[in-house]
Amino acid sequence: MSDAKEGDAHLHRLVLFSDAVFAIAITLLAIEIHPPEHWTSVGELFFLMGPKLAAYAISFAVIGIYWVSHRRLFERIARANGMLDALNFITLGLVALLPLGTELLWEQEAGRAFPVYVTLVALIGVSLGLLWGYAAFIGKLVKPIRPLLATYVLVRVALLPGLMCGLSFFSLVHPWGWGLMAAIVGSLALAGRRIERRAAPQDAT
Amino acid sequence: MSDAKEGDAHLHRLVLFSDAVFAIAITLLAIEIHPPEHWTSVGELFFLMGPKLAAYAISFAVIGIYWVSHRRLFERIARANGMLDALNFITLGLVALLPLGTELLWEQEAGRAFPVYVTLVALIGVSLGLLWGYAAFIGKLVKPIRPLLATYVLVRVALLPGLMCGLSFFSLVHPWGWGLMAAIVGSLALAGRRIERRAAPQDAT
Amino acid sequence: MSDAKEGDAHLHRLVLFSDAVFAIAITLLAIEIHPPEHWTSVGELFFLMGPKLAAYAISFAVIGIYWVSHRRLFERIARANGMLDALNFITLGLVALLPLGTELLWEQEAGRAFPVYVTLVALIGVSLGLLWGYAAFIGKLVKPIRPLLATYVLVRVALLPGLMCGLSFFSLVHPWGWGLMAAIVGSLALAGRRIERRAAPQDAT
Amino acid sequence: MSDAKEGDAHLHRLVLFSDAVFAIAITLLAIEIHPPEHWTSVGELFFLMGPKLAAYAISFAVIGIYWVSHRRLFERIARANGMLDALNFITLGLVALLPLGTELLWEQEAGRAFPVYVTLVALIGVSLGLLWGYAAFIGKLVKPIRPLLATYVLVRVALLPGLMCGLSFFSLVHPWGWGLMAAIVGSLALAGRRIERRAAPQDAT
Repeated sequence: MSDAKEGDAHLHRLVLFSDAVFAIAITLLAIEIHPPEHWTSVGELFFLMGPKLAAYAISFAVIGIYWVSHRRLFERIARANGMLDALNFITLGLVALLPLGTELLWEQEAGRAFPVYVTLVALIGVSLGLLWGYAAFIGKLVKPIRPLLATYVLVRVALLPGLMCGLSFFSLVHPWGWGLMAAIVGSLALAGRRIERRAAPQDAT
Repeated sequence: MSDAKEGDAHLHRLVLFSDAVFAIAITLLAIEIHPPEHWTSVGELFFLMGPKLAAYAISFAVIGIYWVSHRRLFERIARANGMLDALNFITLGLVALLPLGTELLWEQEAGRAFPVYVTLVALIGVSLGLLWGYAAFIGKLVKPIRPLLATYVLVRVALLPGLMCGLSFFSLVHPWGWGLMAAIVGSLALAGRRIERRAAPQDAT
Repeated sequence: MSDAKEGDAHLHRLVLFSDAVFAIAITLLAIEIHPPEHWTSVGELFFLMGPKLAAYAISFAVIGIYWVSHRRLFERIARANGMLDALNFITLGLVALLPLGTELLWEQEAGRAFPVYVTLVALIGVSLGLLWGYAAFIGKLVKPIRPLLATYVLVRVALLPGLMCGLSFFSLVHPWGWGLMAAIVGSLALAGRRIERRAAPQDAT
Repeated sequence: MSDAKEGDAHLHRLVLFSDAVFAIAITLLAIEIHPPEHWTSVGELFFLMGPKLAAYAISFAVIGIYWVSHRRLFERIARANGMLDALNFITLGLVALLPLGTELLWEQEAGRAFPVYVTLVALIGVSLGLLWGYAAFIGKLVKPIRPLLATYVLVRVALLPGLMCGLSFFSLVHPWGWGLMAAIVGSLALAGRRIERRAAPQDAT
């Protein structure tokens, strides 16, 4: 087997392993949710389970978004090495804490758990950013890509989800946060179109 | 790597991820079932665990049927995009709630949990219907297929299982429901044969 | 995509799904084992946890053996259909009950749980036997194989593990059971060699 | 299908199954961690959860390192047989006990659980060593490799992680242990470079 193919096997096993951890973490989100002991109507049932189901939905979306980010980053990665393994394990170790974070979220009183949860979500983004930064700029593990596009991917795919999650909670209290979010997403989308258009001839050929 | 092959990789990872979530949800169904504290004979053991084992068997069948539906739909899908990811996550998010729904089912008193459980099962069908409707009619992500066959697949593969589940519970109370179920399945099977026969020359060539 | 290749995709997804369920069930075996609340020495720790660890080891071996059986059977299967899906789900549904069976085993008093556990293990074997019987003799889903060899596979791969498990527990009480077990395994091995030797020229060419 | 390809399929399923067990075990590490019932500040939260998070981080690293070892060993293995299945199951059975070991670690008083945990970690290394020793020297299941390199792989990939884990705990009490660890890793790295350099011409051609 050639070196290239062995690298592929390594990358393949790494991606499969990551998918399994994401899938288990997302399915375990609901495992600590139990029906209330007493309920008399469907309305009461949903009233009693509301906070848990809301926390479940939020965390499901968070893991879903990071799974998409992870998939997008690894589409651009051509091979793996030990350092990529290690950085990926940090991401997975934080993702596997999300069921715990979700429990914290629904059991909280007086909003004290919000910052902890948001920090956990943001740390996943930071760890993905480190992974991509290493793969693109230091380890040279990615398929041919221009540095500007690599930087754009770093900001948009790795860091944006955590920022958006934090801003969403922030905007619940300070409504002008929604405007800030729209502005960030809009300008990043504009920048992205320009970068990809300019990148197209070079990368595609 | 060509665009086509990258699309394949995306679809491949999406399918594997979905399989993992289905597999975890189906295996977790039994995790909240514990042996009774005191039992003196095998008969008493099964009497005490009966409702739990029945709920387990029902939910196992539900997840099994939806896994088959999911597999059949994705056999006809040729590539994935972000919207398909999102719709698939909604399906998975509902599937991952089935262990909770199962617990609700066996802990219920006076049949109040039936409608909640049936609604959850039906929602999985609806979400699969949305996924297929998007893939076939809007996103154009499917392999070549005639619109009539695509509509038939929508009704039969995505929506039918939830309808059947609901009717099964309904028929426990109103026995004429079984006749209705037989009529629906029978006429759909007849319609399906006609559609597929007519479709065969065009699709196969 | 040709029919043959689509059949392969179906079989491939079925095998992956089964592997995931086996892997989850085997890993969940230990999830209900918790450390004792008080212990003063390593000896006491193992004394307190002994029954649980023994039940864990037995069930781990049972799932491992059935995973090997499953893998061996599916090596001989060339394509899947809906009936194979259904029969495979029955096997998986029983495998997913083994964590519960294991709990029953270690919590039991006076050996009342032994027959329940052995019955569960035997049922997994029976369900594998049904699966293989259908695939080899009715659905014609297997790679070319002589009927005699197919029957031998049915007895040895599908039914033997459950029989051995039952006999092992039986032999703890009636020591002459060990002799019976050795006789069965020995004569099956002898028969197998003859069948495979005779089969070799025909099947290999 | 040729024998070679069937062997590949066996090996492939074995590796996938192992990955699933590793992924489930690593994700279940956090499942028994629950938020404290009362906490008033983030500082108190982390103070209360500190031992659990520390135990989680240690076990996550342990499973991560053994997953890398497992991947590296199996990169050098060309085919599987029943004995490899059995030895691999022993490794997986020990890995699946790590969530329990982690719980033991954080619930311990007076450091009594340390030796139990370290023994479990070391046993995983020993089982990987047995697996590799069998594959390389007895079963001849590996790709062409010189005996000296095979021995080096045995020591470095299989046995080293458990030794390092034990020495890390040891060094918390006896600081000169850190020096011993550095000396072992350094001399192994030196030896490894020599062996691989000498091996290169023979193995690569």
